[in-house]
Amino acid sequence: MMVVMKEGASPAEVEAVAERVESVGAQAHVSRGELVTVIGVVGDREHVANLGLEGSPGVDHVVPILKPYKLASAQFKKGERTVIDVEGRKVGGPYFMTIAGPCTVESRESLLDTARAVRDAGAQLLRGGAYKPRTSPYSFQGLGEAGLRLLEEAKAETGLPIVTELMDVGDVEGVAATADVIQIGARNIQNYSLLTEAGRTGVPVLLKRGLSATLDDLLMASEYVLKEGNENVMLCERGIRTFETAYRFTLDLLAVPVLKELTHLPVIVDPSHAAGRRDLVLPMSLAAAAAGADGVIVETHPEPDKAICDGPQALRADGFADYLRQLEQAATLAGKELQAV
Amino acid sequence: MMVVMKEGASPAEVEAVAERVESVGAQAHVSRGELVTVIGVVGDREHVANLGLEGSPGVDHVVPILKPYKLASAQFKKGERTVIDVEGRKVGGPYFMTIAGPCTVESRESLLDTARAVRDAGAQLLRGGAYKPRTSPYSFQGLGEAGLRLLEEAKAETGLPIVTELMDVGDVEGVAATADVIQIGARNIQNYSLLTEAGRTGVPVLLKRGLSATLDDLLMASEYVLKEGNENVMLCERGIRTFETAYRFTLDLLAVPVLKELTHLPVIVDPSHAAGRRDLVLPMSLAAAAAGADGVIVETHPEPDKAICDGPQALRADGFADYLRQLEQAATLAGKELQAV
Amino acid sequence: MMVVMKEGASPAEVEAVAERVESVGAQAHVSRGELVTVIGVVGDREHVANLGLEGSPGVDHVVPILKPYKLASAQFKKGERTVIDVEGRKVGGPYFMTIAGPCTVESRESLLDTARAVRDAGAQLLRGGAYKPRTSPYSFQGLGEAGLRLLEEAKAETGLPIVTELMDVGDVEGVAATADVIQIGARNIQNYSLLTEAGRTGVPVLLKRGLSATLDDLLMASEYVLKEGNENVMLCERGIRTFETAYRFTLDLLAVPVLKELTHLPVIVDPSHAAGRRDLVLPMSLAAAAAGADGVIVETHPEPDKAICDGPQALRADGFADYLRQLEQAATLAGKELQAV
Amino acid sequence: MMVVMKEGASPAEVEAVAERVESVGAQAHVSRGELVTVIGVVGDREHVANLGLEGSPGVDHVVPILKPYKLASAQFKKGERTVIDVEGRKVGGPYFMTIAGPCTVESRESLLDTARAVRDAGAQLLRGGAYKPRTSPYSFQGLGEAGLRLLEEAKAETGLPIVTELMDVGDVEGVAATADVIQIGARNIQNYSLLTEAGRTGVPVLLKRGLSATLDDLLMASEYVLKEGNENVMLCERGIRTFETAYRFTLDLLAVPVLKELTHLPVIVDPSHAAGRRDLVLPMSLAAAAAGADGVIVETHPEPDKAICDGPQALRADGFADYLRQLEQAATLAGKELQAV
Repeated sequence: MMVVMKEGASPAEVEAVAERVESVGAQAHVSRGELVTVIGVVGDREHVANLGLEGSPGVDHVVPILKPYKLASAQFKKGERTVIDVEGRKVGGPYFMTIAGPCTVESRESLLDTARAVRDAGAQLLRGGAYKPRTSPYSFQGLGEAGLRLLEEAKAETGLPIVTELMDVGDVEGVAATADVIQIGARNIQNYSLLTEAGRTGVPVLLKRGLSATLDDLLMASEYVLKEGNENVMLCERGIRTFETAYRFTLDLLAVPVLKELTHLPVIVDPSHAAGRRDLVLPMSLAAAAAGADGVIVETHPEPDKAICDGPQALRADGFADYLRQLEQAATLAGKELQAV
Repeated sequence: MMVVMKEGASPAEVEAVAERVESVGAQAHVSRGELVTVIGVVGDREHVANLGLEGSPGVDHVVPILKPYKLASAQFKKGERTVIDVEGRKVGGPYFMTIAGPCTVESRESLLDTARAVRDAGAQLLRGGAYKPRTSPYSFQGLGEAGLRLLEEAKAETGLPIVTELMDVGDVEGVAATADVIQIGARNIQNYSLLTEAGRTGVPVLLKRGLSATLDDLLMASEYVLKEGNENVMLCERGIRTFETAYRFTLDLLAVPVLKELTHLPVIVDPSHAAGRRDLVLPMSLAAAAAGADGVIVETHPEPDKAICDGPQALRADGFADYLRQLEQAATLAGKELQAV
Repeated sequence: MMVVMKEGASPAEVEAVAERVESVGAQAHVSRGELVTVIGVVGDREHVANLGLEGSPGVDHVVPILKPYKLASAQFKKGERTVIDVEGRKVGGPYFMTIAGPCTVESRESLLDTARAVRDAGAQLLRGGAYKPRTSPYSFQGLGEAGLRLLEEAKAETGLPIVTELMDVGDVEGVAATADVIQIGARNIQNYSLLTEAGRTGVPVLLKRGLSATLDDLLMASEYVLKEGNENVMLCERGIRTFETAYRFTLDLLAVPVLKELTHLPVIVDPSHAAGRRDLVLPMSLAAAAAGADGVIVETHPEPDKAICDGPQALRADGFADYLRQLEQAATLAGKELQAV
Repeated sequence: MMVVMKEGASPAEVEAVAERVESVGAQAHVSRGELVTVIGVVGDREHVANLGLEGSPGVDHVVPILKPYKLASAQFKKGERTVIDVEGRKVGGPYFMTIAGPCTVESRESLLDTARAVRDAGAQLLRGGAYKPRTSPYSFQGLGEAGLRLLEEAKAETGLPIVTELMDVGDVEGVAATADVIQIGARNIQNYSLLTEAGRTGVPVLLKRGLSATLDDLLMASEYVLKEGNENVMLCERGIRTFETAYRFTLDLLAVPVLKELTHLPVIVDPSHAAGRRDLVLPMSLAAAAAGADGVIVETHPEPDKAICDGPQALRADGFADYLRQLEQAATLAGKELQAV
């Protein structure tokens, strides 16, 4: 940590900061420039963070030097990349993974139709929400446990492992029993109880970036899962909130190569929610793969016009195989191996 | 809802949209302009929302006309304003409320010192966190139940009702037993399970706006509490995330008069978290009161330099009485009655 | 335009709005819903816009229906796409264009070295700034006219047409005499005098999106150029300002397919300025091409470590041919024809 | 400047950075922490900035320590505050100034009516645009020179000094001859030619913050004016662009106390443009004054419903005296002296 003093800070103010730093057992290195004095602080991270020096007399601002996350950092694994194996399907490192399925589990027939279509086209995992976070309390909130049963049936029939969302700590046992990957939605990125519980299940976790989460926030959220001993976390960029209203969210693809530098965890992209429109899903999927993403998660539906939720952004199941061929070419261009299915 | 067709949409496309609208029992009013056709849709809100017309051929975009919230809307109470009475202290309508105390409950002595100081100065409620949401899993997470016991002791001694945060559905009973007002933090604004549980307690709820929550999002979150029959919700502006890095968050004071037009619920402001620095708390508190806020919630600490959490932004307890006098003048300027203490 | 009245607006208020609309020769179609009345307004766009109905009694808000731009809209050319031909090099429609060169023209030798390298690798146009907009008045502001002379020399030697920035109306003649494409920088996106003057030159214009310009703002800026009879405008996404500080700007690639739907103009991407780092330029260039961009504009330098300006983001000239091969593959994937050089 | 090396940067990489720093005559202070090495750089600001170390091997990021502006910094005047005297009316330090008038000069009668009303109510300066920046090239662009003549007439009759906008370098002589304060609009905050020319006139300059300008950007823009020897610059917060769409812009009042700490220049607020609605102007004006602003600039119109431009946000001239009384109370609360008129 560096403490930058104000121009004109007095020697006594500098001294007082140095003393407080040393009072918690850390070291203070005072460096006097022509205009400004900077105090380098070396010592236990937590102790130093609690000093609260930002408000002290003569202090201009404090610059953190170390990354706040540990287990998620690329350095923690010394450059090795995490590959998550979900019943033989892999994501991370050289492996590109496609996760597809409906936004919400709606009915047995429509789920099974979709599951067969995405399996036949070559997707690796089936997604589908049994519990749905909805902005309005008056909207359909998902089939709940009945939805989990249908997902199990779809897995039994198609062999596709299941990705489904956990919203409530109270549902953790049920969801963990069905899910091969537990999704934590963007709205819950700072729901620390939920992150901790998801971590404890030992089931791989797909963590969606919040609407206004910085990359540091996302990595800190993953730290809550990792610290429970659950090493299988994949991060997901799905659009951030900006001033632009021409689309629902701004898909931030620079996050892909930057996250891959900061962390060893796989990074996937959800192009459907940012775009909000079917015709934008293909170009943004190709862009994500070309940017080096380790996978995509997209919505597909046999009859999007009749979907209960997010129909306008779902790919039509009958065009999904074509979509997947193009996506694989983009992933290959970025150096990925494709997985035999 | 208005469906705006693309320029050049064909009559068949217009017809198809109108038919889908009528298929769910709603009415379609087609209005053909020189360049663009607009279809007004009147009917059951939920049915219409589920049509997912955004993706249909020829559709440019869909414009919602009705507000998505019902119970929170100003119209719902026909212009009457909600006044929340917390053990005789009032907020909303003509009443201005000051809530003060430490960020986190740290120790018996420091909590009681602060409680006495804010009571003597004339604050109406005591705030203090027993459970603290922290970005880092390695940071102090609050005293938990022991913190709740200390808050009860502070109330017993000073008579000040307690505001404290609920983070986890599993803690709802304990928090509801101690709290006179349950705070839902900015990170949990879309944690719908938590909102629902808080609503069911019947205890008044203080709902903080999320970092990237629009006013509509905030009002929809309040709707989750209100629909449980809990009418006592106060909304709190506490800073949003923008491109500006000169301060932690951008305090959005325009939200105050605009929320007061949209909803009957009281609107308060937390100037401490946005500013992140003690010296900015007074000017932003005065600004909030002058903008018509129904109250403020601020952090105070007897020795901010020794605070475990957010010390740099805490007001010093010994200057709190002066602060409160100026704040009351600003509230008076905006037409508020002050409460005898 | 639709005027949405407040819930509870009186019949007299509705009537008053309708009368004002009709007073400027437009038509008002009143549509009374169960809760809310909406008034559709049809008539001369300018007259109606000037009514300023937003502040009128009983009015909740006003929803524009028509796009504010005309000449830039996809409808204006009935689906045909603009292809700009710059001395035989094409951009738009099926054609993908690569523009490369240094941020700033620094010296004869370094410019010629770069020009030869990008020509040999197969780039279509040479970029280089003679006039540089700098945040600090104390930074190097470009070589000015001497820089223009060097650009002409580079063109004479390599045959590459020149892209260079116009910052000041007073320089328009000099810049137009040298430039094959006039660049208008992000900072000047709403400098309407400059846009108008650039339009009048008849030279093709490359218009960079401002840091906080919406797509509508960008298209309105192009309208200032187009209305002068200059049909050759290419739009350039180069990153917007958001809350994320892990990179300089957030590259908004969703803008690419959405702009291509809204307008007939070519859409290119500048990945260098958003990333601010060389190693991010390749993945974001591939992503831009895969998303369907009509071209990219990138910075290259023979010795980036010695560049006066933006060295850290410049591609090394000796790796440029490899970069271009990969970029072409991504463009092909998105359906582009490559241009023989 | 501090160069933060990556974890695991090699000694040779550290050495190479230090050598480059020293090659331009600056000093490198290497500080090796347990995990990370930091290199402090002391020396000529421009030379160091041009090193472009961000891209060098082993470098994680670069942290600027010194503020980029000089003349605008509070330190430059050693704590003294700039008071600008406009024909006897003062702004800055203890003085609060109200600037009022129409958005655009429309007609002789309406301008004179407004001028008399704001003079009688006690405003200090008259604002009015002769040249108007408009997003659409099809909108009314102002009366131009005829507008300047009317402003002169209004000044002759009422004695009020004039604030009017300069948009085009070509108009600088005409505008400077009429204006007592030259306004530079938010769209031109990075139009460096215009800033320089405005600086050269010697006429006081009112500089509006751009939609996405950070406080540093705003201060750097002021530096372009100040470096021409023009010391009379007032800064104006007028709303920034954020994700919130409930109002036109987000008025950022935290900018007021923070700017007043960073710079000696007066800081005023324009509440009209952010709000976009008349009923929000009073609460936001009071908030601005209570936050410590040195003044406000607001739009007034004798008949806002007939205004050509921005009528919905203009205060009615006949209520302006009441508005001003309340505003003065808020300014007094923040410690300002009022000016006899």
